[in-house]
Amino acid sequence: MSAVFRRNLLSVSETPAMAVALKTRERIVLESLALFNAQGERAITTNHIAAHLGISPGNLYYHFRNKQAIIAELFAQYERQVAQFLQRPAGRALTVADKTYYLEALLAAMWHYRFLHRDLEHLLDSDAELAARYRRFSERCLRQGQAIYRGFVEAGILTMAPAQIESLTINAWIVLTSWVRFLSTTREHSAHLGEEAFKRGVYQVLVLELGFVTPGSRAVVDTLCNEFHVPFNQALEH
Amino acid sequence: MSAVFRRNLLSVSETPAMAVALKTRERIVLESLALFNAQGERAITTNHIAAHLGISPGNLYYHFRNKQAIIAELFAQYERQVAQFLQRPAGRALTVADKTYYLEALLAAMWHYRFLHRDLEHLLDSDAELAARYRRFSERCLRQGQAIYRGFVEAGILTMAPAQIESLTINAWIVLTSWVRFLSTTREHSAHLGEEAFKRGVYQVLVLELGFVTPGSRAVVDTLCNEFHVPFNQALEH
Repeated sequence: MSAVFRRNLLSVSETPAMAVALKTRERIVLESLALFNAQGERAITTNHIAAHLGISPGNLYYHFRNKQAIIAELFAQYERQVAQFLQRPAGRALTVADKTYYLEALLAAMWHYRFLHRDLEHLLDSDAELAARYRRFSERCLRQGQAIYRGFVEAGILTMAPAQIESLTINAWIVLTSWVRFLSTTREHSAHLGEEAFKRGVYQVLVLELGFVTPGSRAVVDTLCNEFHVPFNQALEH
Repeated sequence: MSAVFRRNLLSVSETPAMAVALKTRERIVLESLALFNAQGERAITTNHIAAHLGISPGNLYYHFRNKQAIIAELFAQYERQVAQFLQRPAGRALTVADKTYYLEALLAAMWHYRFLHRDLEHLLDSDAELAARYRRFSERCLRQGQAIYRGFVEAGILTMAPAQIESLTINAWIVLTSWVRFLSTTREHSAHLGEEAFKRGVYQVLVLELGFVTPGSRAVVDTLCNEFHVPFNQALEH
């Protein structure tokens, strides 16, 4: 058998197997996210995930050595999604339309990876590597958030001193990352969290800057507030 | 022995015993608070507490059936302390001096019961009764907080619409109750938290209203901001 033929044979026989392997790995990640979101990360074991996919636990372990490895993968996806939108566009001034974009992207990311927001503390307490990674993520987001708010100040949409930008960014980050936990310690039935509940969280971040909106941008920011407004009782119940 | 004499004898013989009993109970609560604050609630067992007081575990169990009962007692103290200051004074308009009072009282309560803020989620997750009690406490604080902010609006110190008062109060509550956890997920060494770190948390609540201060109160609120300001890096390190 010539080397070329052998190589071809290998590539022919390996490609479908690898495609299946990739597909299984992706299916594990997707199904885990759905289960974590629906039932909470703590209620789900690797056996549940394997059963839901109709694969053996051994097959799952071939792709991920434990549940933490699946969570690390999901966190990496979440980090990439946030990194993609949480940046100041280069070479142009920010507009109020950018504000809508950031708020909608935040809502989408929080909603898509909602188990991370609900179970964050437990996840960080039980995984030192994830905790260190989260610290870097948190620092990066605070830096990027400040750059974006600074952009809105430079565009004449907000008016704030640098110290105010820093403390506003910190408050925005705390409200966003603590919102789900706040709801679950405040409402009676915290098992199910609907998208409306998350929308109110994004509204709470928007109102942080209401006192700093310039007169020229007031009307359009007020419209944005109305779009994201969800009555608090409704957020507590859904 | 006459009934009167017996009663006297009993009161004579019981009073010191009861005084000792009360004293032991109080000492357990005080020592537990000190240990929880210094090392975290999770690191401390009832055996540690008994050893620190030089009493037997049996003596401790005579007063508290388990660690949860001690925590419930400390939470009740904390609740009473907050209820005492978190109210709008009756029969007079609020002043900026009241703002200083509220901020200092908040700082003192957070600092004194700092383990509650650090370990809150863990405590609520493992004690359904405490979680129900915390929900009522949270609702009460949100209601009282709104009444106080409304008082500042009526006194002409802040200018806000009712919907803004509601969302500001929610944000203030989230920042206060999530501050310690935010610091510990953001900084590298979270074992020790100094009073400066808490002071920055109170500052973060004060800045929430900066955009709503009326021109006549601007100067005095700015002075208050300077008093509570702690550089963020310093809060992260202490």
